[in-house]
Amino acid sequence: MARDPIVLADQARAGNQAAGARLIRMLEEGEEGALQGLRALLPASGKAHLLGITGPPGAGKSTLVDRIVSEFRRRERRVGVIAVDPSSPFSGGAILGDRVRMQTHATDPGVFIRSMATRGQLGGLARTSFEAASVLDAMGYDVVVIETVGVGQDEVDVVELAQTTAVVSIPGMGDGIQSIKAGILEIGDIFVVNKADLPGADRVVRQLTAMLHLRDSAAGGWEPRIVKTEAERARGIAELVDGFEAHHQHLAATGDLQRKAVQRRERVFYDVLRERAAARVLAATPGGGKEILASLRSGRLDPYEAVDSLLGTQKELE
Amino acid sequence: MARDPIVLADQARAGNQAAGARLIRMLEEGEEGALQGLRALLPASGKAHLLGITGPPGAGKSTLVDRIVSEFRRRERRVGVIAVDPSSPFSGGAILGDRVRMQTHATDPGVFIRSMATRGQLGGLARTSFEAASVLDAMGYDVVVIETVGVGQDEVDVVELAQTTAVVSIPGMGDGIQSIKAGILEIGDIFVVNKADLPGADRVVRQLTAMLHLRDSAAGGWEPRIVKTEAERARGIAELVDGFEAHHQHLAATGDLQRKAVQRRERVFYDVLRERAAARVLAATPGGGKEILASLRSGRLDPYEAVDSLLGTQKELE
Repeated sequence: MARDPIVLADQARAGNQAAGARLIRMLEEGEEGALQGLRALLPASGKAHLLGITGPPGAGKSTLVDRIVSEFRRRERRVGVIAVDPSSPFSGGAILGDRVRMQTHATDPGVFIRSMATRGQLGGLARTSFEAASVLDAMGYDVVVIETVGVGQDEVDVVELAQTTAVVSIPGMGDGIQSIKAGILEIGDIFVVNKADLPGADRVVRQLTAMLHLRDSAAGGWEPRIVKTEAERARGIAELVDGFEAHHQHLAATGDLQRKAVQRRERVFYDVLRERAAARVLAATPGGGKEILASLRSGRLDPYEAVDSLLGTQKELE
Repeated sequence: MARDPIVLADQARAGNQAAGARLIRMLEEGEEGALQGLRALLPASGKAHLLGITGPPGAGKSTLVDRIVSEFRRRERRVGVIAVDPSSPFSGGAILGDRVRMQTHATDPGVFIRSMATRGQLGGLARTSFEAASVLDAMGYDVVVIETVGVGQDEVDVVELAQTTAVVSIPGMGDGIQSIKAGILEIGDIFVVNKADLPGADRVVRQLTAMLHLRDSAAGGWEPRIVKTEAERARGIAELVDGFEAHHQHLAATGDLQRKAVQRRERVFYDVLRERAAARVLAATPGGGKEILASLRSGRLDPYEAVDSLLGTQKELE
């Protein structure tokens, strides 16, 4: 296969999954030229519905995503999936059970699934995931699902790059509030209570309803939906996908789709700027800043002094 | 109370909790001069045992931390706690149940608990948490516990700043592997199976043992421990704290304590450098880069082009 990112980009845009996969891996590994490939694709991107799905481990997200993909396929949408798993040396990032389940769609050319195995050297998981989502978008997938494990800030970053965010919880994980507390209540557009056949499902729905009632909602804003599902038995999935589509239409109607696109561009911009500005400061310092780094390591300079010293040196040079 | 960060730093070092709390809040909010206060404290820091505790929501971490604090107090250690909760507009960042439980120690001057309510404008949660931990360290707490909710990359970042990392799981969350899979298996020094009275606890222990067996362990390296606890009934806590202390002694004996301190300094350094280098590029651009930002927002420039354009402009000026 070609190794030229521009060629890969052309092939990916023409629907070649192997080329898309190769380009994503190059982006993930920060390979030289990979960004050129991405940039060649950007003009073709911006049409997909970017759907973030997050929630704690054990909430059944993999099976749920599997069912969601099936439902979108029934609606004749082409679907890309970015599965974000922090890297594990044991698994190479892909967790057995999860990926095995997704094999349902392995032979369907209208479905393309990529796992983000590595954390990414530059810019972190959020940026790498978003770059991968942009590739899938440009490849013409109508829906790109970004699935994250966890409820930490990094997941919040990932889902903030999405247009529609679904937060998955289940009954009986500690209590319902615990399982959804960590700052993601305010970013959810759709709340999924999965494993709704378990005792306590209605209690979780009541708690969510009460908590969402406290949430500020601007006039004309989206009213978050709560949907009960049983992913294992494929129950509630059509209603859930209806919710995703309703939210997407809402965003389009209110101009929020455009506003979110601007926010995404700004986030990527600042992220890239920070990396490259820092690299340039180091490159412009005599010896690449080696002396200052040595003083930092030995403890003679604290981190703040080391930065002052580096930026001060630069000032003199300008 | 004084608002001068240097005065606050002096008071904090003398054991004034209110001054320490004020300084941490200023650091969190990025208030001017706050870093001066932190830097005044850094020479007094570096003595505390930094203990990171992470795991998914519902694992009972709050109660567990409560018991761990009690056990350290029985051993006459002064204990600081940094509870990291991504912000929630409903709670102001502090989750009712969690903090209420910690009131056990509210009247004990040997215990100091701070919640990180905000995500921090600059540098994110990991850096803010670490700055707070450094303040507590300099205030003379023998042990600083950094408790995080979740299993995402941000939590990995937080615990990587710690010296000893405990990963908490419980039986019956999906399956045992699910609940601990997300890239944190390889960073744990101690694995806690909490709620060990629930069915399936021994299965989780067996799974952990099998997975840890696969983990590369350097010769003379630390052999991760697995400890069963029932935090609610205060069972297994002494054994757990024994594990923490054994790990700390191991780090000291092997020189890893020193190596970890160097890593921490480097991480903070690069983090601060990225922020400040980017700010300087923008400040040095005519109009603060407003035109380029406008082109970015309108979509006329993609994020990568915008950065190129900004750094190119700078080059001409130098």
